[in-house]
Amino acid sequence: MISTPTLILDENRCRANIRSMVSKARTSGSELRPHFKTHQSLEIGRWFKESGVSKITVSSVGMAKYFSEEWDDITIAFPVNIREINEINALANSITLNLLVESEDTVDYLEEDLQNSVNIFIKINLGNSRAGLLPHDRDSIEALAKRINQADNLNLKGFLGHAGQTYSCRDPKQIEAVHQEAKSKLVKLTQSFLLDYPWIIASYGDTPSSSVCKDFEGVAEIRPGNFVFYDLMQVQIGACDSSQIAVAMACPVVSIHPWNFEIVIYGGGIHFSKDRMESDHGSVFGKIIRFSPDGFGTVIPDCYVRNLSQEHGIIKASEEMINQTKIGDLLYVLPVHSCMTANLMKQYLTTDGRTIEMFNPF
Amino acid sequence: MISTPTLILDENRCRANIRSMVSKARTSGSELRPHFKTHQSLEIGRWFKESGVSKITVSSVGMAKYFSEEWDDITIAFPVNIREINEINALANSITLNLLVESEDTVDYLEEDLQNSVNIFIKINLGNSRAGLLPHDRDSIEALAKRINQADNLNLKGFLGHAGQTYSCRDPKQIEAVHQEAKSKLVKLTQSFLLDYPWIIASYGDTPSSSVCKDFEGVAEIRPGNFVFYDLMQVQIGACDSSQIAVAMACPVVSIHPWNFEIVIYGGGIHFSKDRMESDHGSVFGKIIRFSPDGFGTVIPDCYVRNLSQEHGIIKASEEMINQTKIGDLLYVLPVHSCMTANLMKQYLTTDGRTIEMFNPF
Repeated sequence: MISTPTLILDENRCRANIRSMVSKARTSGSELRPHFKTHQSLEIGRWFKESGVSKITVSSVGMAKYFSEEWDDITIAFPVNIREINEINALANSITLNLLVESEDTVDYLEEDLQNSVNIFIKINLGNSRAGLLPHDRDSIEALAKRINQADNLNLKGFLGHAGQTYSCRDPKQIEAVHQEAKSKLVKLTQSFLLDYPWIIASYGDTPSSSVCKDFEGVAEIRPGNFVFYDLMQVQIGACDSSQIAVAMACPVVSIHPWNFEIVIYGGGIHFSKDRMESDHGSVFGKIIRFSPDGFGTVIPDCYVRNLSQEHGIIKASEEMINQTKIGDLLYVLPVHSCMTANLMKQYLTTDGRTIEMFNPF
Repeated sequence: MISTPTLILDENRCRANIRSMVSKARTSGSELRPHFKTHQSLEIGRWFKESGVSKITVSSVGMAKYFSEEWDDITIAFPVNIREINEINALANSITLNLLVESEDTVDYLEEDLQNSVNIFIKINLGNSRAGLLPHDRDSIEALAKRINQADNLNLKGFLGHAGQTYSCRDPKQIEAVHQEAKSKLVKLTQSFLLDYPWIIASYGDTPSSSVCKDFEGVAEIRPGNFVFYDLMQVQIGACDSSQIAVAMACPVVSIHPWNFEIVIYGGGIHFSKDRMESDHGSVFGKIIRFSPDGFGTVIPDCYVRNLSQEHGIIKASEEMINQTKIGDLLYVLPVHSCMTANLMKQYLTTDGRTIEMFNPF
């Protein structure tokens, strides 16, 4: 019996999301190198293998080590942290490892301390202003490419970018516009270096653009991650619809307040994280779905999580919902940000009752 | 060597925070029943024991079980989740267990299924609109008190409230005003029931009010938790100053962007949580401190975490800071919300290099 907040996975929805992205990559002529930071699970990884995926992306050295048990070509999509050189050396000894670099200082360090050769992507900032060199900073990029190419143990693999600004979009048209601009920057940059380094590739692709856009010309590989589960944020962005969301938290009802149409659930920030989205109601931290033994159902209208504290969730509910709910019931809550939620929960329970393990660094 | 984001604990600051709150409770005539959901650690719990604390508060049944190894009087400050009745029965068999109830349905269930007697607080909503009965809803409160008192295995212990709205305050004066109103509601309610139930008590006290206010007349026990570490949010509220914050995340520098005065650290939402606070700069997710082998130093001016994604943190830095920082350095980041940060990190490293374990449900 479910007694505490439990992350439920609708395997059918999840496998459909995987198949759909695999097919999308195929028709667009790019290879899918999915980002596994969302699900963080060897077992779910095998569902990708069944669909023909052979290379993956992760966000940390620890996660790369976990997945290296079953995957032999992994990109760590995070600027090299030189303090993890020992772990990087161990990994580079056993798999094809692709690392991200954006400074000559890091290259100097890797050239000196890496014991095995690795592939290096130069990280390019495509507009989300997180990490990477600016695409118009030609001098720095040229100098860095040259420096990497000179190092015996570093193979320049290409340019990698993440157009995270698609997360500010609110419909597919906006996503398409952001995508065209960001993709074109990366592809043009890559093409302009082909004379000197004819083997290099462009690696690109977040969940919104990979879900919605069709034109990936010049992009050798796409790296979306969140699509494996999607979430309410992706619905708001316009990347999916709520019938594609594949995880929901089962939360026990602990209190009902008919006087202000609220239900208190066991399920808070330590389960969902505190990611929220703005809506007509103000901040929303989750929405509630109908649930049947066959899997997830539709979103219940006029019903949403209006706040989360450490363990409490407060649901605004309709009168009908209040009348139908009893203390001890389970409510099923779609998360705003499935990556953060899965990371907190550390395992899944499928709708047919199977536990799926995931990476747990503790 | 620290290679990944690591939560550092300044034991001296933490012990000073504990001593100060113990002394505060003593002078105010209330008993300190600290909330352990912030530190979640048996070892840190022992520092409270050394200061004479003998009763504690936690936020979940799992946490109560963890602490029951060393504590024999525990309040679970969360409305009873009847789906955990087996775990509650096991706990009630070994320690003095105090539970929160706000509905007769829950009382019916407990009367039927509890095998040992427990103490029951009626949860009162003192204005933060999370859980609890409204203090003016006399009929419901009277009926519930009577119902609890009639049940053989339930001992009515009193009324419990949490004035979480102090978290919207921005200076001690505002905290004082919120406190006086909330405390007075709870104390008046308790006093009005003393004729029928002369033994009952009022349990009250969040970190802001317990840190700042002096008048706790009529309050038998206070339950602050966050004060053990404090955090940037508490500084903003006016409950402490930054020299009292006892935890900071050591984060490796992975990239430096002099062109826009930014530093990329390894340290993101999976380490800090996504709690943020608004400031003149917009959202702030952390601030950076100086650090010496003796412990934490002062906050570095004009320098703050402006965004967090899953693993990345982006720091806005002064020119001086940019010039002084090298890739591979560690920066020490004060968290916005220490409870959520500690919960994610699952252990502490003290400034003198000792690892401190905490509750880990996984």
